[in-house]
Amino acid sequence: MAVFQMGSHTHAISMTLYRDNRMKVVNELQRAHNFGADSKPVILLQGGDNISHYDTDVDYVFRQESYFTYLFGVTEPGCYGTVEIKTGRATLYVPRLPEEYAVWMGPLLGLEDFKKKYEVDTVHYVDEISKRLSEVEPSVLLLLSGPNSDSGSVAKPAYFKGIESFVADSDILFPVIAECRVIKSPAEIEVLRYVARVSSDAHKAVMKAMKPGMHEYQAEAEFLRHSYAVGGCRHVSYTCICGAGTNSAILHYGHAGSPNDCAIQDGAMCLFDMGANYGGYAADITCSFPANGKFTADQRLVYNAVLAARDAVCGAAREGVSWVDMHLLANRVMLEELRKGQLLQGDVDEMMEAGLNAIFQPHGLGHFLGLDVHDVGGYLPGCPERSSKAGVNRLRTARTLKAGMYLTIEPGCYFIEPLLNKAYADPSLSKFLVKENLDRFRNFGGVRIEDDVLITKTGIENFTLVPRTVDEIEAWMAK
Amino acid sequence: MAVFQMGSHTHAISMTLYRDNRMKVVNELQRAHNFGADSKPVILLQGGDNISHYDTDVDYVFRQESYFTYLFGVTEPGCYGTVEIKTGRATLYVPRLPEEYAVWMGPLLGLEDFKKKYEVDTVHYVDEISKRLSEVEPSVLLLLSGPNSDSGSVAKPAYFKGIESFVADSDILFPVIAECRVIKSPAEIEVLRYVARVSSDAHKAVMKAMKPGMHEYQAEAEFLRHSYAVGGCRHVSYTCICGAGTNSAILHYGHAGSPNDCAIQDGAMCLFDMGANYGGYAADITCSFPANGKFTADQRLVYNAVLAARDAVCGAAREGVSWVDMHLLANRVMLEELRKGQLLQGDVDEMMEAGLNAIFQPHGLGHFLGLDVHDVGGYLPGCPERSSKAGVNRLRTARTLKAGMYLTIEPGCYFIEPLLNKAYADPSLSKFLVKENLDRFRNFGGVRIEDDVLITKTGIENFTLVPRTVDEIEAWMAK
Repeated sequence: MAVFQMGSHTHAISMTLYRDNRMKVVNELQRAHNFGADSKPVILLQGGDNISHYDTDVDYVFRQESYFTYLFGVTEPGCYGTVEIKTGRATLYVPRLPEEYAVWMGPLLGLEDFKKKYEVDTVHYVDEISKRLSEVEPSVLLLLSGPNSDSGSVAKPAYFKGIESFVADSDILFPVIAECRVIKSPAEIEVLRYVARVSSDAHKAVMKAMKPGMHEYQAEAEFLRHSYAVGGCRHVSYTCICGAGTNSAILHYGHAGSPNDCAIQDGAMCLFDMGANYGGYAADITCSFPANGKFTADQRLVYNAVLAARDAVCGAAREGVSWVDMHLLANRVMLEELRKGQLLQGDVDEMMEAGLNAIFQPHGLGHFLGLDVHDVGGYLPGCPERSSKAGVNRLRTARTLKAGMYLTIEPGCYFIEPLLNKAYADPSLSKFLVKENLDRFRNFGGVRIEDDVLITKTGIENFTLVPRTVDEIEAWMAK
Repeated sequence: MAVFQMGSHTHAISMTLYRDNRMKVVNELQRAHNFGADSKPVILLQGGDNISHYDTDVDYVFRQESYFTYLFGVTEPGCYGTVEIKTGRATLYVPRLPEEYAVWMGPLLGLEDFKKKYEVDTVHYVDEISKRLSEVEPSVLLLLSGPNSDSGSVAKPAYFKGIESFVADSDILFPVIAECRVIKSPAEIEVLRYVARVSSDAHKAVMKAMKPGMHEYQAEAEFLRHSYAVGGCRHVSYTCICGAGTNSAILHYGHAGSPNDCAIQDGAMCLFDMGANYGGYAADITCSFPANGKFTADQRLVYNAVLAARDAVCGAAREGVSWVDMHLLANRVMLEELRKGQLLQGDVDEMMEAGLNAIFQPHGLGHFLGLDVHDVGGYLPGCPERSSKAGVNRLRTARTLKAGMYLTIEPGCYFIEPLLNKAYADPSLSKFLVKENLDRFRNFGGVRIEDDVLITKTGIENFTLVPRTVDEIEAWMAK
């Protein structure tokens, strides 16, 4: 049995996972479309290519395109793949490398090697794709083209010289394959469980290593090491966000202009949002904790407000529940806790009505997770549309939950200067703010608690295994 | 004084480094070209942009374009920069970010902030570049366009909407700025010394952690952690090559098809080629050693042959010496050692004449190193052309050395199946091979010793500080 694996201490991904994905897409396409008895539709996907640093001969470490991973699990650049709808027959097209490349790249895999490695039915060279595909006599090539609702970019349909001589369709495939990716298969769930565990353990290693005076990127370095050395994860799913102190209120901290490069002060809160990637599958976990391992009363107040929101959602989410309702539930619980803590005053329903929730948590409750960290399928045709309401409009999906969906639950509470100033300047919001208490929190930063959970018929299964309560965190960091 | 620095335990790169680079380029341009008293030539460079993973909203961790780093040291994406030749006046153009980005990216830098951060004369927003540049009334915009002799790719000239209304030249700048990059300034030398030291220490940490049974990527993970956590290096200069056993003979091992994923056997040689990157400046170091810390007689033989080649070059290289001669010297010394070790027989000069050197070391002796790992300037106009002779044709430069050049010295000896088979099949080569002894080495892999050295008037200065002799390696690994 062929597998992807990074050593016996890591998870073995059987190639049947990808075959099952292919069969699922094929079946859904046949269910959704009447292709006609004599037609021969064929899915055609193009894999990713190496990307160099500008005009140099150094490449970024290769990342495969996610839809291509979904159907074929191929880790090398420069490939194409086809699936014949009527039979499920899968063909891989691989680059023909000059013999002398063996000196630089090691023994070159032949067609039979690739066939065994990926358990497809046939393998040809890419330079024969036009000819070989003609022999199949496809009635139509189903190409991938559709909008990514997180980036606004459009998936690039496969292209090769000579494709013009085939009939092609760029509409049918996208919504079907994206929807297939939304509901995770049992084999995918095991990969996701694995990479969430590896990421959890890496977070725990970071918490254990944390000392005031360290630089934020030293936490990133430890997370990367643990994920790779222990979990076999060469990649992370997104750039690590390692904000401490006021930086913990910067939602996408860690970017080129602020590369996790600050020293961590004693007394600061850390907000570390990091997730490993294994075989293309993503984790996305945030831990928030005091750098010195002991919560102050203020830190406890904010942390417990977010934890209460997370607990409320974890208790309520299940098949049939609207994600928008979960977002509002989390916001409401958090505002209630802030009110109890005397940072806010007045009626929580009125606060929600006025949009105060989006001042303290400007982002959505969470998002689909899978081969992409912001996974596909959030706003497909026929799904509920994006809200225009503050906060809710940042949700990456407004769908009703189904068993087999996999999402992050990531409520947060942040003290963000421009948003607080906006709230103070707006009488409909400022009336809820207890200025004499809130002023203490101007340099607090923020707290986010992010779990990766599988939706079931009756609830959720939480794949994130890290210390979560104040007591658990303090005990773990004291060890 | 503004600096780039990743905490006080790391090297501070003063912004004067980039100003000095600008002045050097400006002076060389004026020396090489008669621009006319009334002309107003202006260098225009475009910095790099973020690159996303396909159509998703996840970006690769940003890498700045090297020429842009050379002149401006700017770490953010989406910028342009100009330098007025007659005055040296430097202007930076930065993206205008919407105010609401502050929530996601933290407090946005204003024009004055950027001016202080990078110590340029003026900063404008990119969306004003056409207008602001018109006010300067340049007689000609000097754009960057020229071939990278390692990749064959061409540097992409700066482009913005409206550039058509300016006079532009794409020939003058490239050879001058590339040649400036070849000779390192005192400030650049200190950055290179720092990143070589960090990389040396990271290699030493890997050697110390090495145990048979580990996977190759666990060495990569430790190198990355040490470079980042201790040295503040967020990037490496190229994908880590961590080959053990037969994989150590695969020159570009570690690529997507062979991602350092094998278990390391007891008795195997490790060949680890890894270099950190700090502020854009590269290290490129290879250490070869037995996984279990004790050389066998065969390992000692091959290792010492390569070490003798390295020592010979380190003793001979200095200003005025031809790099081609250094390559041939290394090859000759290595073959002589292999002959003494009874792997080869016959006359070494005849072996060289027949091209046997390129069987055991198919790559060049070394290459320029700087902002790119294969740094620019190898085959500029007026420099010696690439040889057609086996082995020598792989040299990334054939130039005569000058003080201030910075290169790798990296002789190697590999037992590469297809090359050995080729040699056995060719009577002009096979007569030198002692088959009964060489057969023992079929699964040996290879050895490479790679140092980063500065050329001086009288010799070299070696920035690589790792255990190099057999005794030093065994002692370090036994500690």
